[in-house]
Amino acid sequence: MLRSEGFALANWNELSFHQVTFAKGFFMEIKSENACFGGTQGVYAHASDACGGEMTFGLFLPEEAKLCPVPVLWYLSGLTCTHENAMTKAGAQAWAAQEGIALVFPDTSPRGADVADDAAYDLGQGAGFYVNATQQPWGAHFRMWDYIAEELPALLGREFAVDLERQSITGHSMGGHGALTLAMGRLGQYRSVSAFSPICNPMGSDWGQKQFTSYLGDDRRLWQPHDASHQMQDVGFDGPVLIDTGTQDQFLDLLKPETLSFAMAKRRQDGHLRMQKGYDHSYFFVSSFMEDHVTFHSEALYSVAKGQTS
Amino acid sequence: MLRSEGFALANWNELSFHQVTFAKGFFMEIKSENACFGGTQGVYAHASDACGGEMTFGLFLPEEAKLCPVPVLWYLSGLTCTHENAMTKAGAQAWAAQEGIALVFPDTSPRGADVADDAAYDLGQGAGFYVNATQQPWGAHFRMWDYIAEELPALLGREFAVDLERQSITGHSMGGHGALTLAMGRLGQYRSVSAFSPICNPMGSDWGQKQFTSYLGDDRRLWQPHDASHQMQDVGFDGPVLIDTGTQDQFLDLLKPETLSFAMAKRRQDGHLRMQKGYDHSYFFVSSFMEDHVTFHSEALYSVAKGQTS
Repeated sequence: MLRSEGFALANWNELSFHQVTFAKGFFMEIKSENACFGGTQGVYAHASDACGGEMTFGLFLPEEAKLCPVPVLWYLSGLTCTHENAMTKAGAQAWAAQEGIALVFPDTSPRGADVADDAAYDLGQGAGFYVNATQQPWGAHFRMWDYIAEELPALLGREFAVDLERQSITGHSMGGHGALTLAMGRLGQYRSVSAFSPICNPMGSDWGQKQFTSYLGDDRRLWQPHDASHQMQDVGFDGPVLIDTGTQDQFLDLLKPETLSFAMAKRRQDGHLRMQKGYDHSYFFVSSFMEDHVTFHSEALYSVAKGQTS
Repeated sequence: MLRSEGFALANWNELSFHQVTFAKGFFMEIKSENACFGGTQGVYAHASDACGGEMTFGLFLPEEAKLCPVPVLWYLSGLTCTHENAMTKAGAQAWAAQEGIALVFPDTSPRGADVADDAAYDLGQGAGFYVNATQQPWGAHFRMWDYIAEELPALLGREFAVDLERQSITGHSMGGHGALTLAMGRLGQYRSVSAFSPICNPMGSDWGQKQFTSYLGDDRRLWQPHDASHQMQDVGFDGPVLIDTGTQDQFLDLLKPETLSFAMAKRRQDGHLRMQKGYDHSYFFVSSFMEDHVTFHSEALYSVAKGQTS
């Protein structure tokens, strides 16, 4: 059936499951829609040009989206995750509903039998690292940077009541790396950036060197836009930054928060970097501080002008 | 290592994983402990007399439990669930931390290769229905009523900073049935009872008749203590009741909220039964109303005397 924008705005929460929509030559399948905190938690699949195949994402729309387009908070997930982990375990919908903000939960890589993969959990499917791969066999599908920064926002703007002038971004672990590098690499696109236990310095970590070599090749200069600590030293972010990491995180040696912390202070970046006593790398940590992060982004997203928040 | 009660009270959040504790002849293994909303989300396995084998449960202790025993809210899960589903998806810890309440997430049945099972999802392992089975092959292990009402609370009281004088109970679907029937079948044990989309009238439903026949035999009089609508007509509950069910619940014909609703009104039971517009049977529904339920129980648990709340 045709799903016009007016219909989407008025009736999006009354659609039955598994409908197929065609609009402007674009294919999207509704995998599920559940009432959630007064809004709707949906899961959608669509044909992606950037990734050369079908991609799946979760989208929470608060009740306010029935009346007008709402601001968007991107949540990028970590290694081995799909669109589903944060959607079911991070507890973000409660706070997004309160603040009137949409949440997007993209997948962490292209997937499928025809998509390259690796036996290791930290390379290939489930481990896209939010870069555009230039090396084979990855280059054909692994273009997560373009997917998150360009293709998926355009789709959301066409099909749902979201306001692309008001985007912010967060993420966990590999997704925190993605959030920080996208925010600094696409200045002007996001009003605020936060991260939970992000990979902060992948060029100096086993969570980074192996993947960047595989996806981007041996020239380390091409890695720099994808290293948050390097980007913080080089360009910084033109808005507020919030980063939480647990003192008992079992991956601290791989995350290297000290490198980003140094860079933030050196740049005099508007930002808070908090080491949270006793917390580890799990979703119990993420959910514990989700209210802080959603509230933080809400202040930036609902300010009259971006300049007021930074 | 020996885990004395004093040590448990003072240092429970600093224990490393997979420790084995012996106290008063009792075996318990710490499967995991994660910092969560200022407290600790733990998972523990122990030898169960009631179920004749190892049982696993989740326990959230709020920060207040470091200082003194805290009240306990039981969360009983539905068909196919383990201890883990609600612990990771219901979003209850945020509100329990705010109110200073412990949360217990028991498993839904005994498990293991030596435990009877059935190919159907709604009988055997994952489908204990919170009864003491008297029929073979179930009688050897399926004693979830005794496990939830007696054995597990006694264990919690011995090993953790919980106050068994202040217990309340809730649950989802089959777990809502368990919460309601335990509350009315053990008057005096729980200060308040609530349920999310409970099975309300199992004696009149395919979610009940098959299981009660298998576990309890053909004499329907023995089923009555395990039918919430029957119990509501027969004895009621000596405290407040809160029940939420979605108007779009895909299992309404099996849940039969109308039968319990009739019985509650007939008895003039102190209670609220709410049909929530647009919500279905999922955890997106449960999490959407979890704050209401935890706050409801907190009022009963933190009142000076039980009589004041009913």
